[in-house]
Amino acid sequence: MKFGGTSVADADRIRSAARRAIQTRQAGHQVVMVVSAMGDTTDRLMDLAGQINADPPKRELDQLLATGEQVTISLVAMALEAMGAKAISLTAGQIGLVTDDIHTKARIKSIDVRRIREQLEAGRIVIVAGFQGVTENGAVTTLGRGGSNVSLVAIAAALKADVCENYTDVDGIYTADPRIVPTARKIDRISYDEMLELASLGAGVLQNRAVEFAKKYNVPIHVRSSLNSRKGTLIVTETGPMERIVVSGAALKSSLARVTLRNVPNRPGVAARIFHTLANAHVVVDDIIQTIDESRRATVSFTVDLADLADARKVVATICKMQGCRAIFEDHLAKVSAVGVGMRVHTGVAERMFSALAKASINIQNITTSEIKISCLIDRGQGKKALRVVHDAFHLGRSPKGAKKTRRKK
Amino acid sequence: MKFGGTSVADADRIRSAARRAIQTRQAGHQVVMVVSAMGDTTDRLMDLAGQINADPPKRELDQLLATGEQVTISLVAMALEAMGAKAISLTAGQIGLVTDDIHTKARIKSIDVRRIREQLEAGRIVIVAGFQGVTENGAVTTLGRGGSNVSLVAIAAALKADVCENYTDVDGIYTADPRIVPTARKIDRISYDEMLELASLGAGVLQNRAVEFAKKYNVPIHVRSSLNSRKGTLIVTETGPMERIVVSGAALKSSLARVTLRNVPNRPGVAARIFHTLANAHVVVDDIIQTIDESRRATVSFTVDLADLADARKVVATICKMQGCRAIFEDHLAKVSAVGVGMRVHTGVAERMFSALAKASINIQNITTSEIKISCLIDRGQGKKALRVVHDAFHLGRSPKGAKKTRRKK
Repeated sequence: MKFGGTSVADADRIRSAARRAIQTRQAGHQVVMVVSAMGDTTDRLMDLAGQINADPPKRELDQLLATGEQVTISLVAMALEAMGAKAISLTAGQIGLVTDDIHTKARIKSIDVRRIREQLEAGRIVIVAGFQGVTENGAVTTLGRGGSNVSLVAIAAALKADVCENYTDVDGIYTADPRIVPTARKIDRISYDEMLELASLGAGVLQNRAVEFAKKYNVPIHVRSSLNSRKGTLIVTETGPMERIVVSGAALKSSLARVTLRNVPNRPGVAARIFHTLANAHVVVDDIIQTIDESRRATVSFTVDLADLADARKVVATICKMQGCRAIFEDHLAKVSAVGVGMRVHTGVAERMFSALAKASINIQNITTSEIKISCLIDRGQGKKALRVVHDAFHLGRSPKGAKKTRRKK
Repeated sequence: MKFGGTSVADADRIRSAARRAIQTRQAGHQVVMVVSAMGDTTDRLMDLAGQINADPPKRELDQLLATGEQVTISLVAMALEAMGAKAISLTAGQIGLVTDDIHTKARIKSIDVRRIREQLEAGRIVIVAGFQGVTENGAVTTLGRGGSNVSLVAIAAALKADVCENYTDVDGIYTADPRIVPTARKIDRISYDEMLELASLGAGVLQNRAVEFAKKYNVPIHVRSSLNSRKGTLIVTETGPMERIVVSGAALKSSLARVTLRNVPNRPGVAARIFHTLANAHVVVDDIIQTIDESRRATVSFTVDLADLADARKVVATICKMQGCRAIFEDHLAKVSAVGVGMRVHTGVAERMFSALAKASINIQNITTSEIKISCLIDRGQGKKALRVVHDAFHLGRSPKGAKKTRRKK
């Protein structure tokens, strides 16, 4: 059971997380809790570090940040003991969660589950610090953004857990953002691949690394609310019945900008150099489209997060000076996407999406696709409307037909 | 170099501690810093624990509290690196500071200094988390009150350090509390035994455990201010020249209470039972005096801290019911003491103290002595006056004659 920062933000929430673990224990299960730092602790520590060193050594930053989760595990253990349960808190070092030594974004190498198993066998609820690891030399590392979810999945995989519950402040994964699409429906079951696409298209909750890890080790993740006991969304391996649902969800990424470079020399290596330079400046590039006109010069266009546009402008100015090209910047874009593994075997999905957008007078400025996703770049002002149109076009608000009776245990 | 909580309370003080370490490094020394939790961090964490569990498991309390020092070490390392120094922070686990498993007041069993030495040889300033240890099983422990000073002395001893500097917010050890005695003078040099007596008589700065540890391993401690670069007080093994100074310091312990039990059966084991019962109730008993009157019943009297009087009353009520004795409580007392290793070879010290107090019309209610200390129990209202009288009686405000020219290197 994993509890994120908001689910352990204060004494009351810690007690309620503890209560849930005890209920699960009383239902006859062994329970491991993975917890994050309380509320805004990590931000507070980062701020403190920033006051002292504008560019703190990453090893020391990890040594600092890992304290956040250590505070939570001990408090959760205290809460459990106060409620009469037997509990023990363990840091990453104490369970031997070994990572490489790439500080602030370490990768897990191995987990020695003996310590956890011993404690579970002794009847204890085990509380593990998420987000952190140790190198073989005993240095503290952290796993980067979404690291607690990676800890959760890795520990669940190592323990061969029956289920891996991710408690959040939402009820599960929705067919679209319910704040924008009132008819959005909670998805009961979604495949790892669909979840990966949705996550990278801006549907929060779980980061790609955790989902990739879960997919690799085939760990089912149950995303559910820490505020009620309703079932949430099960993220699982793709199975037969899923394919009946052509599109599982729709997503909107607002705040996009497009950079178009015209008159780029069409020589091998030029594009590589452009994107290498952007990567060095830490500009994350989204979709890329390259076309060649009759003059044998290329047009390269790519989208970036609006927040990265200022950085992109600087880098692009240098590139244009070197390559003799010309840049156009557009800062008013959004991207609407439809995602579903069913696209692999069904045709007509793109057509249905394009015509629905056309009928709503929404102009498509760019199209990008993957095997299980179609994305359209549109004007930001039409973003929310476009999301509703796509959601309706695929009847995502309706419960999937026959999904219930064909659902398998796996 | 050890920096306590107030010396690392914020970013500015952390920078100033770092600056001092760099100066020492530049003077050609290898430097290990031992640091405490920032400001009121420990209190804040204790409060958080109290909100969750009125009687938190001690193992979890240690897991929680140890984060305070871990935050400081990483921030100090960041500050050093920001100033261009090479630095590395190490937790107790990372240096292998192994303790027994008595959580919240663990005792150090061993320190593996290889890790520290490696880092020193690599030219780094090493910052170690004070107050904490790990058991052989990897559980986090803490060393109890004054634990950071114990860490300092233990690490200095293990490294065979040349000197062990304790940075505080005072200039050193004084002949008496300067807030009460304006003529009090900073002591240049004091023996471990004198320091032990002064500390247990209420002269703060260093706890007895750290001094005992230093005495055992013969580690000289330099107590000095973190706010200036003046020399402080050197706490060292007793040496010849010291004996010329008969009394080194005077101390006042206010807020004392006395409990007198009359008509106690004079049978073997009765006194033991009384003090065993008090210890079980966590009442710390100070001086004990027992007298026997003509009826062959005993009078037992002892002093306790005023804060413990309420607890003592309860325990004593039970004892009196069992033993048929009668209790008298006095809550208005203080204790003035003179301390000096020179008493061992000089006579007339007690007489000089008593007559000075008498001349000032201060009534002595009790006298207790050790080989290097004389204490008088007096009325609290006369406490400050008594301290000044004793301080003057031994001319403690004057620089010791000849101390300078006979001082040796150790």
